[in-house]
Amino acid sequence: MTDYQTPRNPDMSAPRYTGIPTFMRAPLADTLENIDIALIGIPYDGALTNRPGARHGPREVRNQSSLMRAINHATRINPYELCKIADVGDVPFNSVFNIEDSHRDIEDFVSSVISGGAIPLSCGGDHSVSLPLLRATAKSPVALIHIDAHTDTWDSFQGSKFNHGAPFRRAHEEGLIIPEKTVQIGIRGAQNVSEGWDYSEGNGMRVMFIEEVQNRGIEAAVEETRAIIGDTPVYITFDIDSIDPAFAPGTGTPEIGGLTPPEALGLIRGFRKLNHIGADVVEISPPFDNGDLTSLTGATVMYELLCLLAETVSLR
Amino acid sequence: MTDYQTPRNPDMSAPRYTGIPTFMRAPLADTLENIDIALIGIPYDGALTNRPGARHGPREVRNQSSLMRAINHATRINPYELCKIADVGDVPFNSVFNIEDSHRDIEDFVSSVISGGAIPLSCGGDHSVSLPLLRATAKSPVALIHIDAHTDTWDSFQGSKFNHGAPFRRAHEEGLIIPEKTVQIGIRGAQNVSEGWDYSEGNGMRVMFIEEVQNRGIEAAVEETRAIIGDTPVYITFDIDSIDPAFAPGTGTPEIGGLTPPEALGLIRGFRKLNHIGADVVEISPPFDNGDLTSLTGATVMYELLCLLAETVSLR
Amino acid sequence: MTDYQTPRNPDMSAPRYTGIPTFMRAPLADTLENIDIALIGIPYDGALTNRPGARHGPREVRNQSSLMRAINHATRINPYELCKIADVGDVPFNSVFNIEDSHRDIEDFVSSVISGGAIPLSCGGDHSVSLPLLRATAKSPVALIHIDAHTDTWDSFQGSKFNHGAPFRRAHEEGLIIPEKTVQIGIRGAQNVSEGWDYSEGNGMRVMFIEEVQNRGIEAAVEETRAIIGDTPVYITFDIDSIDPAFAPGTGTPEIGGLTPPEALGLIRGFRKLNHIGADVVEISPPFDNGDLTSLTGATVMYELLCLLAETVSLR
Amino acid sequence: MTDYQTPRNPDMSAPRYTGIPTFMRAPLADTLENIDIALIGIPYDGALTNRPGARHGPREVRNQSSLMRAINHATRINPYELCKIADVGDVPFNSVFNIEDSHRDIEDFVSSVISGGAIPLSCGGDHSVSLPLLRATAKSPVALIHIDAHTDTWDSFQGSKFNHGAPFRRAHEEGLIIPEKTVQIGIRGAQNVSEGWDYSEGNGMRVMFIEEVQNRGIEAAVEETRAIIGDTPVYITFDIDSIDPAFAPGTGTPEIGGLTPPEALGLIRGFRKLNHIGADVVEISPPFDNGDLTSLTGATVMYELLCLLAETVSLR
Amino acid sequence: MTDYQTPRNPDMSAPRYTGIPTFMRAPLADTLENIDIALIGIPYDGALTNRPGARHGPREVRNQSSLMRAINHATRINPYELCKIADVGDVPFNSVFNIEDSHRDIEDFVSSVISGGAIPLSCGGDHSVSLPLLRATAKSPVALIHIDAHTDTWDSFQGSKFNHGAPFRRAHEEGLIIPEKTVQIGIRGAQNVSEGWDYSEGNGMRVMFIEEVQNRGIEAAVEETRAIIGDTPVYITFDIDSIDPAFAPGTGTPEIGGLTPPEALGLIRGFRKLNHIGADVVEISPPFDNGDLTSLTGATVMYELLCLLAETVSLR
Amino acid sequence: MTDYQTPRNPDMSAPRYTGIPTFMRAPLADTLENIDIALIGIPYDGALTNRPGARHGPREVRNQSSLMRAINHATRINPYELCKIADVGDVPFNSVFNIEDSHRDIEDFVSSVISGGAIPLSCGGDHSVSLPLLRATAKSPVALIHIDAHTDTWDSFQGSKFNHGAPFRRAHEEGLIIPEKTVQIGIRGAQNVSEGWDYSEGNGMRVMFIEEVQNRGIEAAVEETRAIIGDTPVYITFDIDSIDPAFAPGTGTPEIGGLTPPEALGLIRGFRKLNHIGADVVEISPPFDNGDLTSLTGATVMYELLCLLAETVSLR
Repeated sequence: MTDYQTPRNPDMSAPRYTGIPTFMRAPLADTLENIDIALIGIPYDGALTNRPGARHGPREVRNQSSLMRAINHATRINPYELCKIADVGDVPFNSVFNIEDSHRDIEDFVSSVISGGAIPLSCGGDHSVSLPLLRATAKSPVALIHIDAHTDTWDSFQGSKFNHGAPFRRAHEEGLIIPEKTVQIGIRGAQNVSEGWDYSEGNGMRVMFIEEVQNRGIEAAVEETRAIIGDTPVYITFDIDSIDPAFAPGTGTPEIGGLTPPEALGLIRGFRKLNHIGADVVEISPPFDNGDLTSLTGATVMYELLCLLAETVSLR
Repeated sequence: MTDYQTPRNPDMSAPRYTGIPTFMRAPLADTLENIDIALIGIPYDGALTNRPGARHGPREVRNQSSLMRAINHATRINPYELCKIADVGDVPFNSVFNIEDSHRDIEDFVSSVISGGAIPLSCGGDHSVSLPLLRATAKSPVALIHIDAHTDTWDSFQGSKFNHGAPFRRAHEEGLIIPEKTVQIGIRGAQNVSEGWDYSEGNGMRVMFIEEVQNRGIEAAVEETRAIIGDTPVYITFDIDSIDPAFAPGTGTPEIGGLTPPEALGLIRGFRKLNHIGADVVEISPPFDNGDLTSLTGATVMYELLCLLAETVSLR
Repeated sequence: MTDYQTPRNPDMSAPRYTGIPTFMRAPLADTLENIDIALIGIPYDGALTNRPGARHGPREVRNQSSLMRAINHATRINPYELCKIADVGDVPFNSVFNIEDSHRDIEDFVSSVISGGAIPLSCGGDHSVSLPLLRATAKSPVALIHIDAHTDTWDSFQGSKFNHGAPFRRAHEEGLIIPEKTVQIGIRGAQNVSEGWDYSEGNGMRVMFIEEVQNRGIEAAVEETRAIIGDTPVYITFDIDSIDPAFAPGTGTPEIGGLTPPEALGLIRGFRKLNHIGADVVEISPPFDNGDLTSLTGATVMYELLCLLAETVSLR
Repeated sequence: MTDYQTPRNPDMSAPRYTGIPTFMRAPLADTLENIDIALIGIPYDGALTNRPGARHGPREVRNQSSLMRAINHATRINPYELCKIADVGDVPFNSVFNIEDSHRDIEDFVSSVISGGAIPLSCGGDHSVSLPLLRATAKSPVALIHIDAHTDTWDSFQGSKFNHGAPFRRAHEEGLIIPEKTVQIGIRGAQNVSEGWDYSEGNGMRVMFIEEVQNRGIEAAVEETRAIIGDTPVYITFDIDSIDPAFAPGTGTPEIGGLTPPEALGLIRGFRKLNHIGADVVEISPPFDNGDLTSLTGATVMYELLCLLAETVSLR
Repeated sequence: MTDYQTPRNPDMSAPRYTGIPTFMRAPLADTLENIDIALIGIPYDGALTNRPGARHGPREVRNQSSLMRAINHATRINPYELCKIADVGDVPFNSVFNIEDSHRDIEDFVSSVISGGAIPLSCGGDHSVSLPLLRATAKSPVALIHIDAHTDTWDSFQGSKFNHGAPFRRAHEEGLIIPEKTVQIGIRGAQNVSEGWDYSEGNGMRVMFIEEVQNRGIEAAVEETRAIIGDTPVYITFDIDSIDPAFAPGTGTPEIGGLTPPEALGLIRGFRKLNHIGADVVEISPPFDNGDLTSLTGATVMYELLCLLAETVSLR
Repeated sequence: MTDYQTPRNPDMSAPRYTGIPTFMRAPLADTLENIDIALIGIPYDGALTNRPGARHGPREVRNQSSLMRAINHATRINPYELCKIADVGDVPFNSVFNIEDSHRDIEDFVSSVISGGAIPLSCGGDHSVSLPLLRATAKSPVALIHIDAHTDTWDSFQGSKFNHGAPFRRAHEEGLIIPEKTVQIGIRGAQNVSEGWDYSEGNGMRVMFIEEVQNRGIEAAVEETRAIIGDTPVYITFDIDSIDPAFAPGTGTPEIGGLTPPEALGLIRGFRKLNHIGADVVEISPPFDNGDLTSLTGATVMYELLCLLAETVSLR
């Protein structure tokens, strides 16, 4: 029996439809120690305001992420040569019916991951999960690159100030992010009141509406963002609805006219060698997807973020 | 029982999956009077030549249009602050099996809407409905902005000269449109004969094939169109197949290589403050849609047209 | 303008794809008074434990219910001749993020419907909504006909005792239902512990597992149920997952091997002239549906329940 | 080049996903002569009243019918050994926008097929096509076996008495069918008025509602029908909506609670050695199908009808 | 870090959309020893003759099998209390392009599983995989319960005698099965030649065509099968196409008119306490599935087979 | 019977949903002689390494290609006026289970087509089919325009050096292509090793990664390619996965961030009047498609290639 390869150490050269699906076919962790970058699933969507399903996101992203491989064709980064990477599983939940309790479950698990020495790369889940992620990750106020159709700096909805349209307002109030080093890219979509947009801009965040991004181009967006962030520790949060719904239909609040995948990939690749401390991809809702396209797109975004994190970690 | 809010006056701040779906959650009309802009459904597809289903368009666009909200992020127009807007329901049909009778039903209903003082913003239906819409709307010959993959100036098909490939030839013959002030944008797709293209160009219409639009850019297309139209009363007709089928697959005659949503939105927003007298969005076929993407796109196009009309109405 | 038929009074003889979709093309209410049977949407799914989407149920059931018509071919009941029937819209929610608050919203709205003189026929929503429905409807303990794959007499899950697997345990504890006059039909599906089954049977409820129903036949199930219920006021709750997922795939907790539609219709038609006080259809999740089949099935179940209620009301 | 097998004579032993799809991989005809049974496509849906798409039926049934093979496992009939069978293509249309003209196109083509010596087995198209099929086929009044959810003996709708709910009322008026030898099996679904049911029964047709069929069983239905028909020349018309929509969702007017496929196959196989003169399968609407299930079911029904016709032809 | 529960030991009481999907949420094996029943994925479809995709079967069945739980409601068997059960992963392949080499990969892996002391419960894969499974499992000729639409005793196709229509002819030739103790249940579907049916019957196998099963009932089929098998070691192979395609559309060779799920479950539950040595579920093709229904059905069949095996193992 | 138009000579002016689907409604050949351009289906996917289904490509492309018409709107080429074009059917296979034998079947059939005097325009099938296509077409080493996400110059996978990632490595080894006149356009997607990229570049092929194409523009890519190819006989192979998966989701190895359809059409139209000897479109997998979008895109690419070939042939 010596030659039995256990299913938790998948072989990346095996046919891609085989094996237990872990994030990007990374090994399943036995412990939270001795990992550089921890891939985390956060199957939670209790804070969203419209179409549900992001709770199914981690599982389908894991499934589609088997199509990812090692060497980035554009940057030639091979994250697996640079770092120890493992799938540490999903956040275990004790209370999915109460947003604040669920956020505590997330914060606790991610804190233990970080205590073990890894930096987190998460897959949500609705966008509310970025608040407990920042609570666990930001030991002091951090810079934020926020790619999204919405600023998510709105206030209460249906009685909760922790809904998925509010996490960065809360993060700002809690001192987790530096507003002058917060860049929100891809913003669009009509609103009933302008409050969220006004909050971001009124508090010093840089809001790049989609038309500005499209008119000035990705290179300009990258350069300005890099100038704003500098070498401050930075967290990247990527809402899949930043991308146009033809490329990523499976999401809760689609807005047409978004980023194309080349634009999205161009943005991420533009943020190499920043002082990365973590990242997430959120709002992938498989029940609203067409042919797993959104999960594939989400998996690819996650892979590109992994390349970013791995390069930065390897340079430390 | 005094606090009962009737379901025909939906609350735009309620969760978007709730309530009876009216166009953009506008109130349902009790009367055709005292409305500035009337939202009209035209569930008719008896004149099309290929894949059916546009009869289901108004219902699904109403459904998806609950995702629309008030303030346009790009233009900051809030149409509901500028105008009285109501959903007046669908054209009532007495004869769906005879194109000419059906067109009369449409013309009659839209005429009564206009008599009540409103200008019409319709959702089709196949493109043949634009002919009775123009008959009701154009008291004298009008300018036409026609965004489409096809010129729809072909002649009879299968024995009917009122099929959905012919409305603007008929409109020209009937003196409803000014050919020199007619601009057709986004034209593409092979044809068995060149007759329709030739008819448009031979009669003085400006035909912008898609390659020209893509090469010169949206800004140039807008500027030339504005120069052609001037302040002549103008009707906008938007065929959803002008947009690439990845973004709008649910249509009867898809042609790949079309407008992207940012291009389409850029076109519409370029036509602010023209002398608008009405508009329509047509050829949305839900049975051929993928995950309601086309209906969402159609709803967004309709919302952007609403912003155009509302601004113009408010300036009169 | 005198001949304008407002869109809130749809014409049942119009083509079925036309018009604003109300439940079964019933008129939209202007007031909660003067209605015999109120059709209510409850777009809430905050209490479910697995696949989400039941919040979209009422809208899609309204959409598909346009295929319903007046005269039942099997019973020849025409509910519209027997009663005044109206769609009173959706329960208005103030707090979708807290189960107990949401249940209060439901109870309040349904109570006001009942105060107006109507009996409620609701469309959910997850099954937790039956608890506030019973709170509003059961002035004293009532009999319950419960058609479902699950007994829904389980206890807390993830910290909440109001999750969608628990409503009838809570209803029993609150004295809303008479356990000896509670019949649960169609139960099946593996469980991790037997506690829910045991609770039902241990408290005197009659649990008919699906195999028993299939072996003894619908007629026997109906007869026994009628004998148990007698003329006690009775509420019927119909979970769409009682039906086999080939016929009703769009639901949160599918279990193969369920009722066929002829069996389900046979059950409902068997309950004519009982002392009906209300009914609901729940757990229809359109994002997991195939081609609207579940919504069509749910609409038909709702129509059959309407026939039951209308006949009983007309006999009072 | 002598060994080139032309694509119009497909090889039934080739992999079933290969080749140009003809009905059941029968050869394409070069002429209408020398054929015993002609397989005909009727891609027409201009007479339907609800969901469209039956125009796409023949093409998708041809596609799925490649899964059919030669020897019937239940009856051991091999129609290809008994008869000359060919696909003669689709009815060529000159006027799809006028029901009466389209019906003339159908009657003309089918008449020429019959003049060539073949009996027709057609695939629609909406159910209105059975009227011109009967006009071409019934030289004198014939018996009719009509398997359907609806009696299709209703009168005018939206101004046309040739809509798809009326063909057998018209056929009766035109003296094409013998009402006392007309059996309608599987009838169900609510109606706004009872007129169609009353017309059938009032004129002597035998209407077997679905509940009767389910209660008495297929064998009883077959026996009674055979007794009614005797050896009168008989035409079979099979509306796919007779089958439950879980098995055949792709149709214009679905009604839950229909025949199961074993029941439908049992019915057809019960009609061996009657005096068959033709048959059709109608109302398959691929745009509303789930995974081609309805087209596969329709192809299998067509194959079973082919076995019936072939056996009868071989016995003449 | 002591409280970290590794993702390979999932918690069955966690929400069912969470966690790495193993078969039925069983733990992932670290070794092939100390397991009573090994759950094995065989993602191979290189031997099929029609629609592909069964290679994706194990992954989607794992995904849907999270809906399975512990206690069987009908038999009250809890397999996890009776046996040690683990997911040992997928067969590792070295050569997916050559059927015979692939079969050797399967046989080798399953042999090592059996050497470790477990009995195999596999999820395919096309039906050709049952041949290497029998080679590994049948130390001497065994009895076979074969539930399928096809006898799979046909000969070569396209030059290979190991295609998925031939495994039990080969198994018979190789002396792996006892033909007089082989029962084939559910057979149907036309064939071009009768050779496969004839081979089965000519060699003493008991072929129960679907009509016989439907007419005599499941109980009779079970009794006769039990009488034939006796206490001979028996292998069960379950082809998902035995079930009607409305319930299991995602398969390579669908044939309408098959078993219903209650019939299929009734069959399996009828085989309690036989001398089981292994089982498989095959031919689940997710790319042809509708809404994961086939994978859910396959997962439930696998769970019921697990109950059978566990009970027998516990009684040894 | 003289006026019977046989179904093998379809009428391009008939409604597009009618008739037996041949490639672009070209006539079905009776012989391989007297054809200028032969349209060939190659329903083979036995050599692919990931998601299957390309075997269904030719049939669905034929189906969707009915939407193609005669005159190219951009180039005004009408291929049917320039050449004799016919659909010669699918490659007949004798051995789908052995890659090398299958490749021989393809080579033999295409060779006979070429012997008849036609040049081949094929529709695959997985990309391995280009190897036998080149063997049949390239009498001496040819230039190659290869539009794809992958260089397909990798080596063995799972024991076969003829898998679909290797055809151009083999073609190079066999002396079928001139590496210095081979241009690979659109390359992207991570890889586990860089070997394939290195092989192409190390052997003198011009590899244009997607980012280069996007940055420099289509015009630059066309110009450089034309300069490289010159008037050497050239074969074009178009893998549908070169196009972004939002526009062409139905493929085996999707990689986000690909060509848009306007870019793809621009590339093809840029290659007018080269010395074309044949072309193919491959890797269209209908089971993974959304709403036939990929087949429509593939049909349009095939039509554009037909225009290229026809113009070149007409100029010879």
